[in-house]
Amino acid sequence: MIQIPKEFGVTIHEPSRLTARSIGIDTYQEPVAYMREDCPVCRSEGFEAQSRVLVTGNRVSIVATLNVVRGDWLAHDEIGLSEIAWQLLGSNKPCPVTLSHPDPVESFRHVRAKLFGHTLSSLELRTIIDDVAGRRYSDVQSSAFLAACVGGRMTSTEIVELTRAMVESGERLEWPQAEVFDKHCVGGLPGNRTTPIVVSIVTACGVIMPKTSSRAITSPAGTADTMETLTTVDLSLDAMRTVVEREGGCLVWGGGVDLSPADDMLIRIERALDIDSEAQLVASVLSKKIAAGSTHTIIDIPVGETAKVRDRGTADRLAEVLRHTGDALGLNVQVVVTDGSQPVGRGIGPALEARDVLQVLQNHPDAPQDLRDRAILLAGLVFEQSGVAGTGEGSVRALEVLEDGHAWKKFQAICEAQGGLRTPPQSSHQQILAAECSGRISTIDNRRLAKVAKLAGAPNAPAAGVDLHVHLGDCVEVGAPIMTVHAESPGELAYALGYLSRHPDLVAID
Amino acid sequence: MIQIPKEFGVTIHEPSRLTARSIGIDTYQEPVAYMREDCPVCRSEGFEAQSRVLVTGNRVSIVATLNVVRGDWLAHDEIGLSEIAWQLLGSNKPCPVTLSHPDPVESFRHVRAKLFGHTLSSLELRTIIDDVAGRRYSDVQSSAFLAACVGGRMTSTEIVELTRAMVESGERLEWPQAEVFDKHCVGGLPGNRTTPIVVSIVTACGVIMPKTSSRAITSPAGTADTMETLTTVDLSLDAMRTVVEREGGCLVWGGGVDLSPADDMLIRIERALDIDSEAQLVASVLSKKIAAGSTHTIIDIPVGETAKVRDRGTADRLAEVLRHTGDALGLNVQVVVTDGSQPVGRGIGPALEARDVLQVLQNHPDAPQDLRDRAILLAGLVFEQSGVAGTGEGSVRALEVLEDGHAWKKFQAICEAQGGLRTPPQSSHQQILAAECSGRISTIDNRRLAKVAKLAGAPNAPAAGVDLHVHLGDCVEVGAPIMTVHAESPGELAYALGYLSRHPDLVAID
Repeated sequence: MIQIPKEFGVTIHEPSRLTARSIGIDTYQEPVAYMREDCPVCRSEGFEAQSRVLVTGNRVSIVATLNVVRGDWLAHDEIGLSEIAWQLLGSNKPCPVTLSHPDPVESFRHVRAKLFGHTLSSLELRTIIDDVAGRRYSDVQSSAFLAACVGGRMTSTEIVELTRAMVESGERLEWPQAEVFDKHCVGGLPGNRTTPIVVSIVTACGVIMPKTSSRAITSPAGTADTMETLTTVDLSLDAMRTVVEREGGCLVWGGGVDLSPADDMLIRIERALDIDSEAQLVASVLSKKIAAGSTHTIIDIPVGETAKVRDRGTADRLAEVLRHTGDALGLNVQVVVTDGSQPVGRGIGPALEARDVLQVLQNHPDAPQDLRDRAILLAGLVFEQSGVAGTGEGSVRALEVLEDGHAWKKFQAICEAQGGLRTPPQSSHQQILAAECSGRISTIDNRRLAKVAKLAGAPNAPAAGVDLHVHLGDCVEVGAPIMTVHAESPGELAYALGYLSRHPDLVAID
Repeated sequence: MIQIPKEFGVTIHEPSRLTARSIGIDTYQEPVAYMREDCPVCRSEGFEAQSRVLVTGNRVSIVATLNVVRGDWLAHDEIGLSEIAWQLLGSNKPCPVTLSHPDPVESFRHVRAKLFGHTLSSLELRTIIDDVAGRRYSDVQSSAFLAACVGGRMTSTEIVELTRAMVESGERLEWPQAEVFDKHCVGGLPGNRTTPIVVSIVTACGVIMPKTSSRAITSPAGTADTMETLTTVDLSLDAMRTVVEREGGCLVWGGGVDLSPADDMLIRIERALDIDSEAQLVASVLSKKIAAGSTHTIIDIPVGETAKVRDRGTADRLAEVLRHTGDALGLNVQVVVTDGSQPVGRGIGPALEARDVLQVLQNHPDAPQDLRDRAILLAGLVFEQSGVAGTGEGSVRALEVLEDGHAWKKFQAICEAQGGLRTPPQSSHQQILAAECSGRISTIDNRRLAKVAKLAGAPNAPAAGVDLHVHLGDCVEVGAPIMTVHAESPGELAYALGYLSRHPDLVAID
């Protein structure tokens, strides 16, 4: 409605151009862009620190948070990108980009509405999750979304629709078989590496279990890290299909396949807040199963003071929501609540856990009984769920398959199909820690024990970690070995022992 | 309970030392530290990107978010600090620091509890606000706290205690007088610069009004920016006291005094989320008044589609909470709901608004009537609140004081006391924009008009901004001047006009 003088019309429609380059700053998952304060684009676009900017180049557009630079390590006509921003832009050399204001994230108004008591519709959840997956939410926006979902504020319908939205935000695998099985542990127990054993037992009897696993994020080892000490886990989708066609199952890293990408963004913020939202947990677990093409899953919820779920009531409520949500989305969910008071097996760390897994599969006399028992329990449940065994008869069948060597043969065959079975590496530096007094082992702190293994170098140093030689209730004499710390360098061994010296009651003796 | 070999005990208790230096990156209010990936401290302490790190040096400890650097622009033994982190550390040259893990922010568990439905106690709110003010909350934590407080989830007692906690988190001013007055506008209206006029009118009649104002944060001008074109506003607390002793009032910048510091941290995140929490708004406004030593305040809530408060119902609810919270904390609050459908006065930008203020004070025939009317309304309410005038008689008294020149005299005296009255600067570049068609002015977008003034350079360029020549309902002929854009450089003039060319219906003619 206003006449704009012609001489001005032109200046502005020209987009703001700069050269983008990587400046090697790891801001984790939040893309950050660095521009000089006196850069002409900052002025013309009115950008300031913390502005959200749309960077377009290399045929890709990304949204980044702006940090304004007052040093001279960046040129006037340059824009520096943090590692994740550079990775998303997908260029391998400095490239021209244009800068502009991103459109406001439309879906965030649904988050605002949710905070004010509104119930989110399927479509609203879908647009929120699409924007989260597309990294259009800043960290503080994701935090507000998570805060809007905790404390029982999500109805069961919202949880179902949140899960569906997460499934639809990423890739989906499809399998020719009508029934595809999975198993999952809600987590928090170091050493609880039942997956390779369960997959071997059940696929030995014809059950289909194309298992994709994660690498460690905050733990000393993920199943993918442990398996990587034994075989190749970084398979393409085609290679994975070939393995599953041949063996009925696989044990690969899921990171190559983009399943439920929104979940990865949200988990990072949940961790920073240390908030476990039931809705997010259910959506996170089930969306990955459904996206991976599973029709049936067994979910193990360990309960213990230093496990993720701390009491039975919480576990039961969680189980109910998992089952209900699974039902609504065509996934048969069976839940088993287990003891989460102490680590499982002896090893904590990729290679040490691989050793435990091999001992169980090989029926070695030293095989950790607790790991073996858990794997049999879970494999038995899969047998019952799949009809291979009748109700109450699954464990007996699982034990037979393990004891007669079929599970071990199947494990070898899967590893061969994935590229060959390897021997896990051994640590170069060890330190045994002994009991300072005689008595009964009264508590073991799962979280701190995991921290010791991480400080010793796990999972990056695959042979590093902790071997725990005791269980709760064991009686020990003074000087008896409690644990062995394994490291690949003397420095890392020292870091782990230093932490132990500050937390000597991490394993308590009464 | 475990024996730690002696040779290891020593290594670890030695703190991790690096040299800290400023690297000129503006991360706004969130302190960020930059360390090389291969820096020994990263490994030994287990730090990774997004870790919170405690940096101690120069007798100060600060908590920062870690960004891991893979370039070589930072040395192995260096830690780079963002501008705010460097400022908080308070060193003027590179200095040795030690790094460690900060203790988890204890009070955040109260935020978690609040998210799960708990009501916060006075003590819990106090510890949360102390940690926010001490910058011990990360941005995502502050975001979760804000999310926990919106949607009517705060009881009126919680709002009172939140306000009290904010007052107690910072400095407090005290005045010898029993009754100290203030006025406040909830904001969102460009050009609504009544404060200098109100202060002049009421102090001319003996009312005490020691007014501290803010500079612009997202608007084209704050009262402090406007006053700075007329006199010195950056006064020490002592100098401010001297002015108030002599004149009964002042018009200074409040930023030098640390009133309600937690509010500044939270406002930044609220802005990023674009969430207006009633609880936070009330606590924010009232905590600053109480900390500044006020006993009485008039609060102006403009209501309009592009103002901060968009409907009358919201304004009335807000007014009720403001009054109740004020009562509980010994602050007499009177609320007036005003028209927020369009800007007030003509000028938008520091010097242009100063010109309007002077015209009103000097009874200039061109003085904008709307600004004059609003100032008289508000000053009248202060007169009634303070007993200078009876109920319903305040405006008449205010008009007298303005018309007889006493207000103008008082304004000059206050400016003289603050360091002398100056003439506001004039812009070097102007462009008049004319109506493209004839008709009636039907809408004026406050937010976009503010943006034009900012792109033209306000408030950093004090003479820059917009002069609006029309009001809602005015009938204009094609070619009639609608607004004049003022700038101090041709480039900035072009930016503002470019934005106008993309949003020509920012002023709509029917």
